[in-house]
Parts: sequence; structure tokens; C-alpha cells
Amino acid sequence: MTSAGPGRPRKQQPVRPGATARDEILDAAAELFTGQGFANTSTRAVADAVGMRQSSLYHHFGTKDDILGELLKGTVAGGLDFARAVCAAPRPAGAVSAAAALHAVALYDGGLLCSARWNLGILYHLPEARAERFEPFMADRRELRQLYRDLGQRVEEFLPAAGGPGSAPLGELVFRLVESLINLRADGLADNDSASQTADAAVVLAGLSAQLNEVRELSRGLIADYGRG
Amino acid sequence: MTSAGPGRPRKQQPVRPGATARDEILDAAAELFTGQGFANTSTRAVADAVGMRQSSLYHHFGTKDDILGELLKGTVAGGLDFARAVCAAPRPAGAVSAAAALHAVALYDGGLLCSARWNLGILYHLPEARAERFEPFMADRRELRQLYRDLGQRVEEFLPAAGGPGSAPLGELVFRLVESLINLRADGLADNDSASQTADAAVVLAGLSAQLNEVRELSRGLIADYGRG
Repeated sequence: MTSAGPGRPRKQQPVRPGATARDEILDAAAELFTGQGFANTSTRAVADAVGMRQSSLYHHFGTKDDILGELLKGTVAGGLDFARAVCAAPRPAGAVSAAAALHAVALYDGGLLCSARWNLGILYHLPEARAERFEPFMADRRELRQLYRDLGQRVEEFLPAAGGPGSAPLGELVFRLVESLINLRADGLADNDSASQTADAAVVLAGLSAQLNEVRELSRGLIADYGRG
Repeated sequence: MTSAGPGRPRKQQPVRPGATARDEILDAAAELFTGQGFANTSTRAVADAVGMRQSSLYHHFGTKDDILGELLKGTVAGGLDFARAVCAAPRPAGAVSAAAALHAVALYDGGLLCSARWNLGILYHLPEARAERFEPFMADRRELRQLYRDLGQRVEEFLPAAGGPGSAPLGELVFRLVESLINLRADGLADNDSASQTADAAVVLAGLSAQLNEVRELSRGLIADYGRG
């Protein structure tokens, strides 16, 4: 029998990925929310998909919103940790190393969006996800966006010709392109190259396409230093 | 009394924009679908929001899905018409005029996404909107994406250095950036400059930032020629 957390032991072996019953609930909910819609999924259906009683599910999550909140936070957590680490590292000494930091964050964050088991980002703009109770997720996502902007600004500081009045901040454009990987995936068009192509586009937007190979190499180094295995 | 289409006359003057009762239904549904969610909105609630009996609503739309299908089609219709016209116009003679065509489509299409009364694009990736019955919308959106790709390819043909193996097609990146205006708007961050900044980013992605003013001028000409007032 498998038991984890405060719930009572379940009657069967885990059928879903994850070390704990809680992880299994999250996985089942992610499948149902992305497959048939959040409003159309009951906690009963989630419990059934884990092979658990609904009352056991409530030991782990008080409401369906709590499950969604945790899932949404999970979509930005890995990218946010990495972006924080890159931003806290020694400041880049030139445009190429500044661009490498932005490239690395786009590649790492975008890679997570493309490779996550479920494409939960399609739920970001649900009216239901705008509620106050999802503020922890929204705050993380705002912080991530701001880190992209900060990294973009470091690049722009080295390139007085780039940006300029009336143009969109580089970091904001890159954040938007990375999040659009969610749409690309929903459209069935994402592949193994999508995240790296998106990161490379950040370098082109910075006006540094001639230095692309150099940027890529430094970016690989940052991911080796600050990424999780 | 106002009457239009096959429905019976309504009891009150129109309270929503649109020339016909059908338009009013679409407007009310768009407000409710984007504000409280598609699954959470009943046709009864839509009828109430127009001041119409539910039975009258059914004279215009057989199901809630029919309303959603029509609304989704409306989000791409204007951009698609414009992109078709630009693609059918005489082929550009050089990189700058090719980039102007892509810029114009991004600006026109993005402008419509930013200025539409309701931000319906947030419904694109609803699991519910993936159903077979929304295929007419999906087909239009695929065509629009392909026109972006075609216009991007015309630019790339003039610029052998751009693109290259392993990089994302220019038109695809621009399509993604334009659609990300939907997210920007949902986040409350879109403003009057967002569409033009996005169109300008297409020129930077093409490696033509030095010709930006020239591209913008030609783009204005295309919008004057092929846009709807």
C-alpha cells in the first residue's frame, strides 16, 4: 500500500507519475483540466482518475481551486528559480554575455514549458484563474516577467542603438515569445527545437545575430551552472 | 421595436452595440465568455444580458457552441481578409517592401486584437474550442498563420543571411508575437503602442532595423490601400 502525507492509505499502487499521492492528484487534475477544461472537471473526476476516494482527495487539497493554484505555480517555478539565479550571478561585462543570460533564461524556461507533461499554460488566461486566490501564481509570473525585462535591459545598456524610444522592451518581447510556446504546443506545432529557436530569436531581437554562436556557448555554460540537472 | 433576422421582435430597444439582435447576442456572449468563462455561461444568461427570451435567442443560434464558433471566427476574420489582400497584391521587389507587407499585416491584425471590444483570443486554447465543430475557425486561423509564413518567406528570400538552418521561420515568430498581444491585453499591459511595437519587432527579427522608417512608411501605404477604413 502507498501512503504519503496526511491522507489515509490508498487501496492500490500509484498509477501516475509522482512520489506521493499529492503528486498523483496533481497529475490527474492537470490531465483533466487541460483535456476537458477546468470548469468541466469535478474533484470527484480527479479522485476517480487517481483511484482514490473523493474524501481522501480532500485530505490533500481543500478545493479544486487549490489544485489549480498549485498547478499554475508549477508552470513558472522552474523558470523563475533559474532566472533568479542568473540575475543574481555576477553582472555581464558586455553585450554578448548579457544576451547570453537572456538567451539562457528563454531556453531554460521555454524548455520547461515545452517538456512539461501537461500544457498547463493554456489555463493562464481562464477568467477563473484571474481570481484573488491565484495571486501567488500571478505574483510569481509577474516576477518572472520582470526578470526577463531586467535581463533585457542589461543587454540594451550595452547597445545604445537597440531599443530606443517607441520600441518595446527587449525582455518583454522575449517573455511574450517564450510564453507563446504554450500556444505553439496547443496547436501541435512545438518540437525539440522550439525552445532553442525561441531563445535564438531573442539574440536576433537584440541585434546580435552575428554573435549567435558565442551567445549560445555562454548560455550553455549558464544552464550547466545554474540549471537543475 | 428592433427586429432583425428570423427572431421575433424584442420587447426593448437594443442595449448593446451592433445593428442586429444577432450582433447584440454575440456582444453579450463575448462579455460573459471572457468575463466568467465559457463553461460557466449558460445561453439563458446570454439571453438575459440582451434582454431577450431564451427561446428568441435560439432563433439566431442553435447552441452555445454556435455562438462561440462565430465569435472565434470574428477574431481572425479582419486580419485574414487584410493578409489575403496583401499577399495577392503585386510581389514586393526587395527586402524592404517585403518586410513592409509583413509589418502591415502584423500591425493591422495586432491592432484588431488590441482594439476589439472583448479579448476573445483568451478562448483560443480552451479544450472546448478544440472540438470538430470549431473547425471553420481553426481553418481560418491556420490560413492566417500560413499567410504570415508566406510573407516572412518573401522577406527571407531577399536576405540570404537571415533565417538559415535551425532558426524559426520569420513569419511564424511574427504570428506568435502578434497573438501574444492577446495575453498582454489579458494581463492589462496592452496600450495604444502595443500593435505597432509588435510590427516593428518583426522588422528587427528580419534584420532590417536600419530600414525601419522606410518599412513603416510603405506599411502605412498598404494599410491605406487594403485596410477597411
